[in-house]
Amino acid sequence: MSPEQFRQYGHELVDWVADYWATLPGRRVRPDDAPGTVAGKLPATAPVAGDGLTGLVDDLDAIIAPGLTHWQHPRFFGYFPANTSGPSVLGDLVAAGLGTQGMLWATGPACTEVETVMLDWLADLLDLPGKFRSHATGGGVIQDSASSATLVATLAALHRASGGDWRTHGTRRRYTVYTSTEGHSSIEKAVRLAGIGDAGLRLIEVDDHTLAMNPDRLRERIAADLADGAVPALVVATVGTTSTTAVDPLPAIGEITREYGLWLHVDAAYAGAAAVCPELRHGHAGLEHADSYCFDPHKWLLTGFDCDAFWVADRAELIQALSVLPEYLRNAATDSDAVIDYRDWQVPLGRRFRALKLWFVLRWYGRDGLRAHIRSHVALARDFADLVRADPRFEIVAPSPYALVVFRLRGGAADDGDARNAALLDRLNAAGEVFLSHTRVRGRYALRVAVGSPQTTAVDVAAAWDAIRAAADGVCA
Amino acid sequence: MSPEQFRQYGHELVDWVADYWATLPGRRVRPDDAPGTVAGKLPATAPVAGDGLTGLVDDLDAIIAPGLTHWQHPRFFGYFPANTSGPSVLGDLVAAGLGTQGMLWATGPACTEVETVMLDWLADLLDLPGKFRSHATGGGVIQDSASSATLVATLAALHRASGGDWRTHGTRRRYTVYTSTEGHSSIEKAVRLAGIGDAGLRLIEVDDHTLAMNPDRLRERIAADLADGAVPALVVATVGTTSTTAVDPLPAIGEITREYGLWLHVDAAYAGAAAVCPELRHGHAGLEHADSYCFDPHKWLLTGFDCDAFWVADRAELIQALSVLPEYLRNAATDSDAVIDYRDWQVPLGRRFRALKLWFVLRWYGRDGLRAHIRSHVALARDFADLVRADPRFEIVAPSPYALVVFRLRGGAADDGDARNAALLDRLNAAGEVFLSHTRVRGRYALRVAVGSPQTTAVDVAAAWDAIRAAADGVCA
Repeated sequence: MSPEQFRQYGHELVDWVADYWATLPGRRVRPDDAPGTVAGKLPATAPVAGDGLTGLVDDLDAIIAPGLTHWQHPRFFGYFPANTSGPSVLGDLVAAGLGTQGMLWATGPACTEVETVMLDWLADLLDLPGKFRSHATGGGVIQDSASSATLVATLAALHRASGGDWRTHGTRRRYTVYTSTEGHSSIEKAVRLAGIGDAGLRLIEVDDHTLAMNPDRLRERIAADLADGAVPALVVATVGTTSTTAVDPLPAIGEITREYGLWLHVDAAYAGAAAVCPELRHGHAGLEHADSYCFDPHKWLLTGFDCDAFWVADRAELIQALSVLPEYLRNAATDSDAVIDYRDWQVPLGRRFRALKLWFVLRWYGRDGLRAHIRSHVALARDFADLVRADPRFEIVAPSPYALVVFRLRGGAADDGDARNAALLDRLNAAGEVFLSHTRVRGRYALRVAVGSPQTTAVDVAAAWDAIRAAADGVCA
Repeated sequence: MSPEQFRQYGHELVDWVADYWATLPGRRVRPDDAPGTVAGKLPATAPVAGDGLTGLVDDLDAIIAPGLTHWQHPRFFGYFPANTSGPSVLGDLVAAGLGTQGMLWATGPACTEVETVMLDWLADLLDLPGKFRSHATGGGVIQDSASSATLVATLAALHRASGGDWRTHGTRRRYTVYTSTEGHSSIEKAVRLAGIGDAGLRLIEVDDHTLAMNPDRLRERIAADLADGAVPALVVATVGTTSTTAVDPLPAIGEITREYGLWLHVDAAYAGAAAVCPELRHGHAGLEHADSYCFDPHKWLLTGFDCDAFWVADRAELIQALSVLPEYLRNAATDSDAVIDYRDWQVPLGRRFRALKLWFVLRWYGRDGLRAHIRSHVALARDFADLVRADPRFEIVAPSPYALVVFRLRGGAADDGDARNAALLDRLNAAGEVFLSHTRVRGRYALRVAVGSPQTTAVDVAAAWDAIRAAADGVCA
């Protein structure tokens, strides 16, 4: 592709993206096609001769866009948001063009150093404890996701709990990991991947009202496991659980992990972004006890996937756990010990220049712009919760400290009630006007409205509520 | 950022990328700055108010570009290449703009289906065994890197070797994993991460001339481990090792893994791309024995990082090993069993629309364009090897079946010879005219010239040889 062709297609596709964003409000939030619809529109094999991208934009319009669930849609309220933004896309564009590899400092000094500085900027914006900064004992790194952050924390915890023996002999001892019954599924996955086995995961009971981990039960379980000969290694506490954004009590949990010498990882994948606002930092009380912490700028901080920000309090422990150094990666900078080689902070070896999009986003919005972004969603969610509360057919089933509202149709025998709520969700999502997802709270089916798409306004929230009420009329008729 | 601002900056940065590529030949291949140089040019904290990206392009020119090792530079011959191309960058741009999440089919049907089709296209282009196609028992998926592919294969192998018990009880038995002494460091890392422990890794001796795994030694070691009560789980064979692109003998290894029921993973991270050319498929003989296979389009197939293509022969085994299904991810399509949910094929939960860049690349170049790309580099590497052979000061130390040439200055006592070769590399790279990396072959320091940057031509290879000779004059003087 010649430079002129790249410019021409590049300008065309920048415009296509701008048009895509502008036309989102008029699109179905998710398609209504059977599996195989998109695949059926593609040729069975690659072309023999290059086609010069003939028909590319037509195919994007006819095959790709209609076949997607639109996460940037203003009426996408499912799961947690996966924000992106203009500055983030621009940062990704430049990073893709540079095509550099940041596995070692030496293979991309700017790639490494911008990342270190951006993670320090973020630590400052969230007012994280000083130990997580690069000029203290810790430092931050971009992981692809909170799942990988949890896995990395699990590995560092095993290294510590084993006194270093884990590197050599693996998980042949009976290690245990603790999170609440509301902890994310990636914790179960990390425990399995790390070779601990599902049987080593302890799901600690939660408070029935707040749905936050009960620290008394945590202490009892650790003590029981110790008495039973197990090796407790890690507690994963959550600030903003996936089901309901419950906040585990870090001060009490942190006292326990400190007492027993366990690694404390704090998973704030969604809610961490809210800490750019001082009035939304309550969940971080006790964070000084944490050995590691993560949140996802790619969820609610206008930065496209993948960008999980992960910090450790003691980078030496992490590096000891993960480092391998073959001859072909040796270099003077690494040997000097004066640089960060981020390959030792993550699962894969290679890495893109993901800090660039973070730099673009933080420059474009600034601290105040990010605060305004978060506050607008929190206010919209409060307004939505007020609408739900005002309708006697509905009940809100969990506290709503951020921008997620979890609610359900009241009444009826348990099974009928769950079926009615499931029918309500199916009816809503099938219409394509809005998209919501669901969960179970105290065993009962509930709907989730996560306000977080950058384009979402009061009009969209009102439209969602209208659609929900209309669907409820149908389900309850 | 308004749509108009996005268009304006987008066009400007597309042009910046085109200019960056055009100006690469005139740049130093890697910077000559001390650690901290880039960080020192950045503010200590994020701006309070957004700055509208004022000075952005100036900063890219003054801080970022001069602070990078330029992997797309025509005289970058280090490590293995990390190709990108215009079509790939365009695909990444569109994917970033769509900002969709492909963790489930339901959260991005087109994201999932385009990926399945593209991996079938690639399997066809490389002429992989039929079982790896999605319409057979297998299927392909994009991993971030070959490191993650190796980890995923390790987990599936543990699942099989344990009869399923690994999911519940982890790696408490003494599992063993086999690769050659030339296997990639990511195998050691996967073994550690999976909880097997470094002690469970068996590095099998290689043939002294070909540097390929000796299958007799493999068989002996497996038998000895079995006799000793260990549980052999996995063999990782390499097609194109990192040091020298040696090719392990798959037919003989495959007979052994089949006889003992071990999982065979074939790591063709670099060399797999060459199989788009029928005359370069020799390394794939015996691939019908493999349970999984991967190669990196992001190395040598014009597709930007991250894009590792990973196939399994039996997708059910992989999914059984990795699946977790919390309530909040349940959906009708998943329950129907009629779709692929790629979250169960990888470590993280979330995933980007990476298949889009692959689609753009395969359309733009077509089968013939990709063959021409590979063949040009293979021819350039042969020409370079001829130059080395013609100079009596140098010796080539390993066969060169693809586009990597490994060589060294001859002679002298062992230690002096290694020091002289290391000095040669330092002198070369410090000048910034070319970039090479090194390895050790049979314990001796050697230099590597990997021809693979898309812009590299005969002029660049000649320039590299001139620089090497001149540096050798200096070192040998």
